[in-house]
Amino acid sequence: MRIGIYGYGNLGKGVELAIRQNPDMELFGVFTRRDPASLKLMTDGAKAYAAQDIETYKDDIDVLIICGGSATDLPVMTPALAKHFNVIDSFDTHADIPKHFAAVDAAAREGGKTAAISVGWDPGMFSLNRLYAGCILPDGKDYTFWGKGVSQGHSDAIRRIDGVIDARQYTCPVEAALDAVRSGEGPELTTREKHTRLCYVVAEEGADLARIEREIVTMPKYFADYDTTVHFISKEELDRDHKGIPHGGFVIRTGSTGLYGEHKHRIEYSLQLDSNPEFTSSVLVAYARAVYRLNQRGEIGCKTVFDIAPADLSILSREEMLAHLL
Amino acid sequence: MRIGIYGYGNLGKGVELAIRQNPDMELFGVFTRRDPASLKLMTDGAKAYAAQDIETYKDDIDVLIICGGSATDLPVMTPALAKHFNVIDSFDTHADIPKHFAAVDAAAREGGKTAAISVGWDPGMFSLNRLYAGCILPDGKDYTFWGKGVSQGHSDAIRRIDGVIDARQYTCPVEAALDAVRSGEGPELTTREKHTRLCYVVAEEGADLARIEREIVTMPKYFADYDTTVHFISKEELDRDHKGIPHGGFVIRTGSTGLYGEHKHRIEYSLQLDSNPEFTSSVLVAYARAVYRLNQRGEIGCKTVFDIAPADLSILSREEMLAHLL
Repeated sequence: MRIGIYGYGNLGKGVELAIRQNPDMELFGVFTRRDPASLKLMTDGAKAYAAQDIETYKDDIDVLIICGGSATDLPVMTPALAKHFNVIDSFDTHADIPKHFAAVDAAAREGGKTAAISVGWDPGMFSLNRLYAGCILPDGKDYTFWGKGVSQGHSDAIRRIDGVIDARQYTCPVEAALDAVRSGEGPELTTREKHTRLCYVVAEEGADLARIEREIVTMPKYFADYDTTVHFISKEELDRDHKGIPHGGFVIRTGSTGLYGEHKHRIEYSLQLDSNPEFTSSVLVAYARAVYRLNQRGEIGCKTVFDIAPADLSILSREEMLAHLL
Repeated sequence: MRIGIYGYGNLGKGVELAIRQNPDMELFGVFTRRDPASLKLMTDGAKAYAAQDIETYKDDIDVLIICGGSATDLPVMTPALAKHFNVIDSFDTHADIPKHFAAVDAAAREGGKTAAISVGWDPGMFSLNRLYAGCILPDGKDYTFWGKGVSQGHSDAIRRIDGVIDARQYTCPVEAALDAVRSGEGPELTTREKHTRLCYVVAEEGADLARIEREIVTMPKYFADYDTTVHFISKEELDRDHKGIPHGGFVIRTGSTGLYGEHKHRIEYSLQLDSNPEFTSSVLVAYARAVYRLNQRGEIGCKTVFDIAPADLSILSREEMLAHLL
């Protein structure tokens, strides 16, 4: 299976690394809007190409993994590329998924290709767990918690404040809320009760720290609805202690069965990830295998993690799966 | 969707209860090897029938859920019934799954029917989680822990000892082993290190308790390889404190990504169940929906949880899934 990577940021690099862990795949090359000569790939034999030339390589790539941002890149890129390639992306603007799905589905069908969108961990593995748990326990309630992990969007929002040089924001689930959910009482939780926000900020020398802190904690949408803690640290401390991109979270469903709902059950799925982009990339690569197989079988159009049978992700034979995993 | 239940023990009763939680399903009836008049169903309009008459009702049942034991019932029942009905079972003798699969597949294909075997939580949801996690983190290691929960087989083994009136055995995961696994160190764990066994035993008056305890803790396969604790209690205490059938467990995979495996990740799935048979039944009923849909689409033969796309389990429309779950 020959894989192309479109976009070479953290996610694209993660895909390159993930391909090395899957012996049935090889990296054909990376497509970039930057100067291809400026890219240093980690894979022997793979080359960097100009993004604009991609259609030249239609017959060389079995699945193209599109590693762009959800805000402006993917809504344009994925439909455009799905006409010519089997594609997969990690589109994560939850509210716009139906629209993105429709656009990609139309393009893929036009080209006789197979696409998968919104593949990663949320949307992705967390979505799958919400679906499975909801089907098993129809009388129940599910909760998603994120963290402890770095939110790029919130870190960026802090960096835009006057006097801020750099910042790192962690989203943290509240232990007491997790405990209340696990108890099976089905609590109603406010935004503030579920997560806190922890900020490490590097300020310019002489900046008004009280004003920066006030601007952070009162920022609408991003921070005002949360209990937010701000720590001012040096650039050296930020680079030393906060250079990773960890993330994770929990999907928990509690529900009941029995004649009177007398038996309580809890299903919990959790992730703890040292590298958010590398884990997302690993999910993308597993689903790239499925996209290729679906296309080989003539199943064209846009798919999501809900539409793909688990066996299609696996390098194992049916016999191995039945004997060792079931 | 009209559901038939074949066998009316704990699992069959659980299926009857689960059907009530799924508005797109109705219970046609229960088939029993006992006298049908002796069964008191909980569902208005559903009837009990003699198992031997089942073929008469071929056209009345969309999916037949077979609720027999794995040791002797299912290896015979499921292939025999798969010729005439869409069927599903919870066959859980892991080592015999390939053989059972082949027999059911041949029978279902002969009859143009769809079957699903080994559906429940282990095999079932735990298997799915082993598969997904292994595909995402190929460089890693997975662990399955069971409990705290009642093992029927181990309880039965104790009851066969001379002088024992009744017994209840709990399988318990060892916290220190769970912690070692979660740390990501990928420990090699012996049987004894992973689980302990906790036994509550009601002995005959005047029985030699020391001998009973010795016979339990030294029993090959069942107890000899474990640290086992035996408590003698009264029949009243057993009935009062140990009448439930709770179970649960953990599937944990730890693995690494990066150029040198420098980023560690942990995927954990866990269940905590008040009623093992009612939860298993709830999984069976969700997969019965998928079996029906697969057959409607002409996808015949035997399937497992690996072969079934998650969307086929859900009562929700594609639009609802994309908008609210993904």
